[in-house]
Amino acid sequence: MFENSEKTNIEQLGEFGLIDHLTKNIKLTQPGTVKGVGDDAAVLDFKNKKALVSTDMLLEGIHFDLAYTPLKHLGYKAIQVNLSDIYAMNGIASQVFVSLGISSKFPLEAVEELYEGIYLACEKYNVDVVGGDTTSSRQGLVISVTAIGYADENEIVYRNTAEEGDLLCVSGDLGGAYTGLQLLEREKLVYLENPNIQPDLEGKDYIVERQLKPEARKDIVELLKSIEVKPTAMIDISDGLASEILHICKQSNKGCNLYEDKIPIDPMTYETAREFNLDPTVCALSGGEDYELLFTIKQADYDKIKLLMDITVIGHITEPSAGCNLVTKTGLVHALKAQGWNAFPPAP
Amino acid sequence: MFENSEKTNIEQLGEFGLIDHLTKNIKLTQPGTVKGVGDDAAVLDFKNKKALVSTDMLLEGIHFDLAYTPLKHLGYKAIQVNLSDIYAMNGIASQVFVSLGISSKFPLEAVEELYEGIYLACEKYNVDVVGGDTTSSRQGLVISVTAIGYADENEIVYRNTAEEGDLLCVSGDLGGAYTGLQLLEREKLVYLENPNIQPDLEGKDYIVERQLKPEARKDIVELLKSIEVKPTAMIDISDGLASEILHICKQSNKGCNLYEDKIPIDPMTYETAREFNLDPTVCALSGGEDYELLFTIKQADYDKIKLLMDITVIGHITEPSAGCNLVTKTGLVHALKAQGWNAFPPAP
Repeated sequence: MFENSEKTNIEQLGEFGLIDHLTKNIKLTQPGTVKGVGDDAAVLDFKNKKALVSTDMLLEGIHFDLAYTPLKHLGYKAIQVNLSDIYAMNGIASQVFVSLGISSKFPLEAVEELYEGIYLACEKYNVDVVGGDTTSSRQGLVISVTAIGYADENEIVYRNTAEEGDLLCVSGDLGGAYTGLQLLEREKLVYLENPNIQPDLEGKDYIVERQLKPEARKDIVELLKSIEVKPTAMIDISDGLASEILHICKQSNKGCNLYEDKIPIDPMTYETAREFNLDPTVCALSGGEDYELLFTIKQADYDKIKLLMDITVIGHITEPSAGCNLVTKTGLVHALKAQGWNAFPPAP
Repeated sequence: MFENSEKTNIEQLGEFGLIDHLTKNIKLTQPGTVKGVGDDAAVLDFKNKKALVSTDMLLEGIHFDLAYTPLKHLGYKAIQVNLSDIYAMNGIASQVFVSLGISSKFPLEAVEELYEGIYLACEKYNVDVVGGDTTSSRQGLVISVTAIGYADENEIVYRNTAEEGDLLCVSGDLGGAYTGLQLLEREKLVYLENPNIQPDLEGKDYIVERQLKPEARKDIVELLKSIEVKPTAMIDISDGLASEILHICKQSNKGCNLYEDKIPIDPMTYETAREFNLDPTVCALSGGEDYELLFTIKQADYDKIKLLMDITVIGHITEPSAGCNLVTKTGLVHALKAQGWNAFPPAP
């Protein structure tokens, strides 16, 4: 993987040398960061805001495959996945902690590439890297990120506060990350069978990027604020639309109707799903990793959002006894089921 | 390892089922915990205090060996290691996030045992478990903990604020965790050679506990507060006394004299080090994992601490040009070197 570059051995640097090397150029821009890297703990000041904290772990072989994931993209994605949780609370992300477990076979250049993606994401989203841990791993690459953010108490949006009659909305489009993954997996198999064949991803940039380089929807949080719409409930879509809708409904003790024909699916997602003999709707419902925001709004706010290209109304919240339903394109009503990505898949 | 107990398959529960199962009995006791497990992020309220955040990752095969580490102890230690960082800032620990990567071969009962230790530590130290992540791991067990705490701004103690003339102090005694590890490693080898031989740890409880079940020194932080001594600089001893002293001196831009004959070493540590043909002083200087507190105080505070059994003055801070020195029992002066535990050890 790193054959063409000059390699520097991590062991020569040692743990503290590596940390110094990776963190020496950090610029802190958040006023709430009192002390970043370099002490036993970071010191943060939330003033009169509430703090939001979320953490996610990415493991090689489970969450990513280095065969087709550039390290820079991986670092970028590890940050996005975590920031997405802060935005899903309607908060502003401000700091991250990054812990890495790395095989000592990794050259320094590989770790630098990973960090390049981490810093790029942080810079773009105006987030400080304030701490973490770096250790050798006997097994695969391990990335654990903790994201910190803040919000006024009355701005925070939970999952369990959807009300009957609220409109179910989603940002962007769905299923792209999953179909992108199918494509990457296929090209990996082709490559393994014949290493002389180059991957054929032409014209598929959008869905490949959805998988490898997702963007957390900070812009949607800002957009909703600017038009003075406060969602009544919100969650980010990491496990698939169906699973996230069920979280909101279960925790709010409500039901819902989701309309299949309203689910936003990009034409490239649609077409690629078909190529793989997959139902595009199933890709959107169960694919996961889109990192879009799913939220509910009051009906009274409909006029404010109806012309926004990047927000789609896909259903509404009902009383709990009605259950959670998918209304298909042909008008059939099915109970909505979560078949989303499971970190503990049953053995085949 | 789990032969005698009834086993429940994690896969049957799935990720959300497992999280529900493990978190359903959580009691929140910290007034600052607005929202714990169950949303995209935890919501915390620090009021007019500063927040302290620290994170540590423990990997199987690097930081622990399941051959002699009971899972309950491991869970307990994973929490202590992180709380120790908050106390080292002179703060009060209040919340933790626990992320686990577990092989799906682990039965539910094993995960429960790990969590038992986690909850035990949190209850004892009055800390809320407010979130985390649970995922399957293809390789070994991965534990990543983020600890949160708080302090008034003027109470926080950094590493870089030691002054010339300050006394260098340490809590408890040192080298125990390392000699305990030697013992456990020896008994593991004996067992691997002949599984019929039971481990011989008799009379060695203290140092075995130092390794397997360390206690973060919350009591020392409280003690110092009660006698109105605010350390001028502080760090916890995770990598060995020498390494931590050098951190304080380097970051404070000072030198120091450390007196070998003052370093507190328990008789059992001393005796066991000798059994292994190790120099007890080296075990204390470079062994690590004692999770005691190393701190500096003003000379004027000496009278307040001189009679405290659990605090030992081991040296003093000097001007930077004097360097960092170890004054041996025979009066020789050596430059202090960090040979502490390195997460990236050079290949043998």
